Amino acid sequence: MVTYKKPDVEQFLRAYTIQDFVLNNDESQLIFSTNISGNFNLWGLDLPNQFPYPLTFNDQSCQGLCYDKDGKFIIAAFDNNGDENSQLYMITPEGGQLNPIRTSEGHQHLVPTLSEDGNRLYYTSNKDDSTYLKSYCYHIDTGIEETLISGDDGPTYLFDVSPNEKSFLFLKLFSPTHMLAYVKINEELISLTPESSEQHTVTDVVYTSESDIYFITNCGEDFSYIAKFNIEDKEFSKVVSLQGEIFKMIKYDKKQHLLYIVSERGVEDQLYSFGIETAKLTELKSPVGVINKLEVTKQGNVYLVGTSATKPSNIYRKKINEQCWDKLTNNRILGMNEEQLVDPEVISYPSFDGMEIEALYFKANSSISNDHVILWPHGGPQYAERKNYDGVFQYLLSEGYSIFAPNFRGSTGYGLAFTKMVEGDWGKGPRLDNIEGLEFLFRNGLADREKVFLMGGSFGGYMSLLLHGRHPEYFKAIVDICGPSDLFSFIETVPEHWKQMVTQIVGHPEKDKEKLIEYSPITYLENMSKPMLVIQGANDPRVVKEESDQIVAILTEKGRDVEYIVLDDEGHGLTKKDNELKIYSAVNEFFTKHL
Amino acid sequence: MVTYKKPDVEQFLRAYTIQDFVLNNDESQLIFSTNISGNFNLWGLDLPNQFPYPLTFNDQSCQGLCYDKDGKFIIAAFDNNGDENSQLYMITPEGGQLNPIRTSEGHQHLVPTLSEDGNRLYYTSNKDDSTYLKSYCYHIDTGIEETLISGDDGPTYLFDVSPNEKSFLFLKLFSPTHMLAYVKINEELISLTPESSEQHTVTDVVYTSESDIYFITNCGEDFSYIAKFNIEDKEFSKVVSLQGEIFKMIKYDKKQHLLYIVSERGVEDQLYSFGIETAKLTELKSPVGVINKLEVTKQGNVYLVGTSATKPSNIYRKKINEQCWDKLTNNRILGMNEEQLVDPEVISYPSFDGMEIEALYFKANSSISNDHVILWPHGGPQYAERKNYDGVFQYLLSEGYSIFAPNFRGSTGYGLAFTKMVEGDWGKGPRLDNIEGLEFLFRNGLADREKVFLMGGSFGGYMSLLLHGRHPEYFKAIVDICGPSDLFSFIETVPEHWKQMVTQIVGHPEKDKEKLIEYSPITYLENMSKPMLVIQGANDPRVVKEESDQIVAILTEKGRDVEYIVLDDEGHGLTKKDNELKIYSAVNEFFTKHL
Repeated sequence: MVTYKKPDVEQFLRAYTIQDFVLNNDESQLIFSTNISGNFNLWGLDLPNQFPYPLTFNDQSCQGLCYDKDGKFIIAAFDNNGDENSQLYMITPEGGQLNPIRTSEGHQHLVPTLSEDGNRLYYTSNKDDSTYLKSYCYHIDTGIEETLISGDDGPTYLFDVSPNEKSFLFLKLFSPTHMLAYVKINEELISLTPESSEQHTVTDVVYTSESDIYFITNCGEDFSYIAKFNIEDKEFSKVVSLQGEIFKMIKYDKKQHLLYIVSERGVEDQLYSFGIETAKLTELKSPVGVINKLEVTKQGNVYLVGTSATKPSNIYRKKINEQCWDKLTNNRILGMNEEQLVDPEVISYPSFDGMEIEALYFKANSSISNDHVILWPHGGPQYAERKNYDGVFQYLLSEGYSIFAPNFRGSTGYGLAFTKMVEGDWGKGPRLDNIEGLEFLFRNGLADREKVFLMGGSFGGYMSLLLHGRHPEYFKAIVDICGPSDLFSFIETVPEHWKQMVTQIVGHPEKDKEKLIEYSPITYLENMSKPMLVIQGANDPRVVKEESDQIVAILTEKGRDVEYIVLDDEGHGLTKKDNELKIYSAVNEFFTKHL
Repeated sequence: MVTYKKPDVEQFLRAYTIQDFVLNNDESQLIFSTNISGNFNLWGLDLPNQFPYPLTFNDQSCQGLCYDKDGKFIIAAFDNNGDENSQLYMITPEGGQLNPIRTSEGHQHLVPTLSEDGNRLYYTSNKDDSTYLKSYCYHIDTGIEETLISGDDGPTYLFDVSPNEKSFLFLKLFSPTHMLAYVKINEELISLTPESSEQHTVTDVVYTSESDIYFITNCGEDFSYIAKFNIEDKEFSKVVSLQGEIFKMIKYDKKQHLLYIVSERGVEDQLYSFGIETAKLTELKSPVGVINKLEVTKQGNVYLVGTSATKPSNIYRKKINEQCWDKLTNNRILGMNEEQLVDPEVISYPSFDGMEIEALYFKANSSISNDHVILWPHGGPQYAERKNYDGVFQYLLSEGYSIFAPNFRGSTGYGLAFTKMVEGDWGKGPRLDNIEGLEFLFRNGLADREKVFLMGGSFGGYMSLLLHGRHPEYFKAIVDICGPSDLFSFIETVPEHWKQMVTQIVGHPEKDKEKLIEYSPITYLENMSKPMLVIQGANDPRVVKEESDQIVAILTEKGRDVEYIVLDDEGHGLTKKDNELKIYSAVNEFFTKHL
């Protein structure tokens, strides 16, 4: 006689995110950043007791976390409601007050890294150079700060510090497809990769000794591989690669003298160990489809955080010499088991020029399907839609919508050349890949031409606006989440140290003027005839609020059906549960109204 | 070079409360109500994994919780933001939606109890009789509801159901010192205690078989004891008592055929086992000073939730045949260890008439003391200040205030006669006990006559108002939290089923008119010359908002220094962390202003 209610938005969105974690030296305390209580805070576990306790109450997401090896304190980086100006704080392992250690209002303090003895704090900031950045060594005991390196031709970030602090690794981030790593020893700055006329990347790096550096690069190749650099003889050598896989993470296990490697194989991650002496690559079973962070302790135990399409983020541990992973946290979807969630199909289709495009297709359960498909062009654009948990997708699926998420040209995971295709071509190739994806769905009975919605955030928001402006006939209604509307104003308002990168990826306002006009959604205002919902974080430093304000203002003036929601305490993307609930309930309501 | 900040209000108040817990039959799932995430929700543990997960997101405190023995569902009672009109919901063990099972807006649904097979839900409600209440049996499978009993001379609550549902125990709650238990079998209603001209209580009860009932009563004595009632021969017998201890909780361990008994010994609880066959009473080590709930499972394992002065609430488990308690949760004070918190001294002083009064004296650490003492008359009034965790006390202590909390006449824990002393004497004996307590502190150098504040809630709020009106010279400033200001309007506005009790405890508006005038704070408005902060929950059904409104309005009109904070989403007492933080920061600010 009791009618069980159907699941609602809270059930899907209340599953939390674990952003980052860190362990003390004897692994008796695990500290992690999570929004388990609604907003992000640091929480601790006193292992083997798995019951977590809060360590902070500042309600901010964490952009950096490290633990003094002696367990005296933690360093954590927090920004203010999404403004990305993270400041560095010292916190005792018992939690409590945030004690400012390196702060400078309006500036970023990034990649905090502690010396082995916990006396020196290394980090990168834009406080003295907003374009190229500087990295510093702050002596915690004396309060003296030295400049470690000043960027001079590109934004330069600290990457790692050698065990004895004799050398330092830096990353020059010219663009996501052009990132070079350098080792600084004495006053010399040496590139880890050989001189090359081709842009390439170094994406992760570890010291295995004072002189040996292992890292991930795609120098001279389309797919990344593990390489080694020896500081003494300045020798670069390729170590190992895997056909069709892109290495993305590398960690050093000193205890067993091996590397743990995470690679991307299409939309899922793989995990390997690689014996440095034996050169043996062994595939390991991963407990998740996508690994977000992995750490190896000095005892040789492995910890990781990750998700699968039907599993929200959890921290897992594999003890040395054991095969299986213990789940240390217990994040789950309220009132649901995994079988009730949708695992996407991986499909592939030829685009307008024959290029093969991979996509995820989340099919709503036939008993609840409303036969409508939401096209979701992902953000980035040099990013990919993968088999990670997405509470918004699962919620919309439970409301009857299917979701189509193509990895259009420019996406990561398909080689360097593919990723570079979006550069200088924001508005054509990727756009047509989306349209061709829809046509593929229509041809194959996976979508109905009259029943398509469109939603995206960041670059996906831009793409949603552009698709609306150029192909309005495909869509019943559109949701844009912090998408740039005018590429000229967008280029002008990104943070200083992004400008070089934005020129490469988007274009130059003068040299590429014609193209930027052609690629700007705002050029096609007349065509934007369908109902639209625009969502924007007020503190967004990447796509500033004016990008949304301007398009909403003009369309409203033209009498178009535009709803606008501004979130005062968010930046580029939502971090607060209450905001997520509000926004995605509104999205569902908006689509339902236009079914 | 980093200055560590001193602890603040959040560190003390963020420690959470565990209200209630329940286990499934094989003890693989522990469900509890806690405000760990700020507001109360149900959370689960999949033992032995101790990482909790949320089961609900309604943000309401839980007034009743039971688990279907087969693990199919949970029944939980929630009210709406403190209005105490709890409704009954069915929830799956995976959590999610609240599915209404017995609801009726504006009415209470209390003591939900499930039959062994989970098909019948027993409960008490005021939906059909707001004065005496009725208890019901709701057939979950058919939706048919029967009335089990209708109260006729006092508010009558379901107490327990016999294992085979052949008999039922009911409690008639005339007042906290006059509560009689009855067993209903067939159509007969039999008192568990012998006829007595003296008021007495039955406070807890268990079936150990279809015919044997063990319970706690003080029938014919000043201190409570364990008694037995046999249904077949209708025989009452005293089983066991302990000099100077008041039994408060009794549970049956079927596996070992013994009783677990919790007793109050002054300001701390004791735990015993009592062999039913052996009649042997054994003191057990308790992990906490005050036990709030204890359960014995069919496997004979014991679970309890409780606190100590320096330990916030945690759930502990003692497995059968083991001696030590495992802490299943890990609630702690952020950034503090137990030694940094204040364990109160127990002191005792003679009152105006020679009556000995016990009190707790929390002494601020001398390095931070501001030499001021806050007098805290507790609520109830038939209640006691004990060695349980109080985050507000610990916070105020960390701000330099010492706290004096006397168990004035009327308090529980010192015998029935002592508890009854407040009845019909709200405004004299207890008031003078508070004043004599202060004089004792002055005489013994524990407080300075010029440095005393006053704060209390509920009856303690009333007492604060009255002390302000009659002894303003003692206090620098006063905080009143939902205290009745006018006993006439108070009597008139309490819930219907409390009226009988209020007549006994407070008095009759006509018969006791003179006394009620004398005892009403509002009689002494002229004297209320000190700064005052009044705090009130808008939904409070016990002390309605008008009680605070009226005194604030008159004092404000007279130009007195009165601050008033109304909480729109609270009832009688605070349940939401954000409200607690706001209120107790304001209290500290208020006192600091008047130091």
